[in-house]
Amino acid sequence: MSSENQDHPQQHIQYFWEDLPVGKRIEMGSITVDHDEVVAFASKYDPQPFHLNDAAAAKSMFGRLSASGWHTCAMAMGLMVRNFLNESSSLGSPGLEAVKWLKPVYPGDTLTLFQEIQDSRPMNSRPDVGLTRTLWEMFNQHGEQVLLMDGWGMFRRRERGEGRSDTAG
Amino acid sequence: MSSENQDHPQQHIQYFWEDLPVGKRIEMGSITVDHDEVVAFASKYDPQPFHLNDAAAAKSMFGRLSASGWHTCAMAMGLMVRNFLNESSSLGSPGLEAVKWLKPVYPGDTLTLFQEIQDSRPMNSRPDVGLTRTLWEMFNQHGEQVLLMDGWGMFRRRERGEGRSDTAG
Repeated sequence: MSSENQDHPQQHIQYFWEDLPVGKRIEMGSITVDHDEVVAFASKYDPQPFHLNDAAAAKSMFGRLSASGWHTCAMAMGLMVRNFLNESSSLGSPGLEAVKWLKPVYPGDTLTLFQEIQDSRPMNSRPDVGLTRTLWEMFNQHGEQVLLMDGWGMFRRRERGEGRSDTAG
Repeated sequence: MSSENQDHPQQHIQYFWEDLPVGKRIEMGSITVDHDEVVAFASKYDPQPFHLNDAAAAKSMFGRLSASGWHTCAMAMGLMVRNFLNESSSLGSPGLEAVKWLKPVYPGDTLTLFQEIQDSRPMNSRPDVGLTRTLWEMFNQHGEQVLLMDGWGMFRRRERGEGRSDTAG
């Protein structure tokens, strides 16, 4: 019986729960931080002076304009969605066990995200779903880690006979 | 000797570390979720179909358009900054111990944020700074909790003889 997952048309799914074993590490791509977007994000969601303008930032503990930590998380999510989740059977996330803002993020920085599967188990209440615990690590162009996140994701499991899309006949 | 904290002009500081004892609970205000902003945020940072358009969302597990969990966090931060952090001696946050997305957030929802101090201790490496561990709880207009966050903040301590701004002569 063919499945009909309306969130994730079957032909686009590269990653079911079974394709995410413990230890698997995937690069999620890179993004360069844009100065005006740093200010725009902060204006709406984190209007602390040192995220809003260069003059205030120069006098702050950061020394120059830095991105909101929430903007850093949002940029990581953008990479995660575009390079992984939209090609997966993801059913969302109940939350995170940790977020660590390890270094400031500055306009012009190029950030690269990796995810690594830390834990994986079937979901007892839903036999068609599995849980994964994933470490997210983002690094700047100097190789310094700027962000760590540790969170849970829910993924639909492959049905019997349901192969990878690239090998299905 | 008067302090000169360039991030936080002294006259604006209502909350130093000493003003945030364990058990203190503060309402951080409310925000109504805007449909177009939900879509704009998701387009940049979380372009999963069910956050982008009503038709795709109607067919998804959520049943209708919902905000990105990261957008919910960002809205909470906006309330926290406008109603608390910009009037405090905040020196930023090293990170969070938990983020839980407990219920979907929909356009038109009105969200109200509370913070409660869970723990408080001096920072060993910096005698002028204290740490607080804060629970963030956000509820929708039905009284349902939609978000829980548990994180650390760093606040400058009041100097000897440095009073509240509203009582200083």
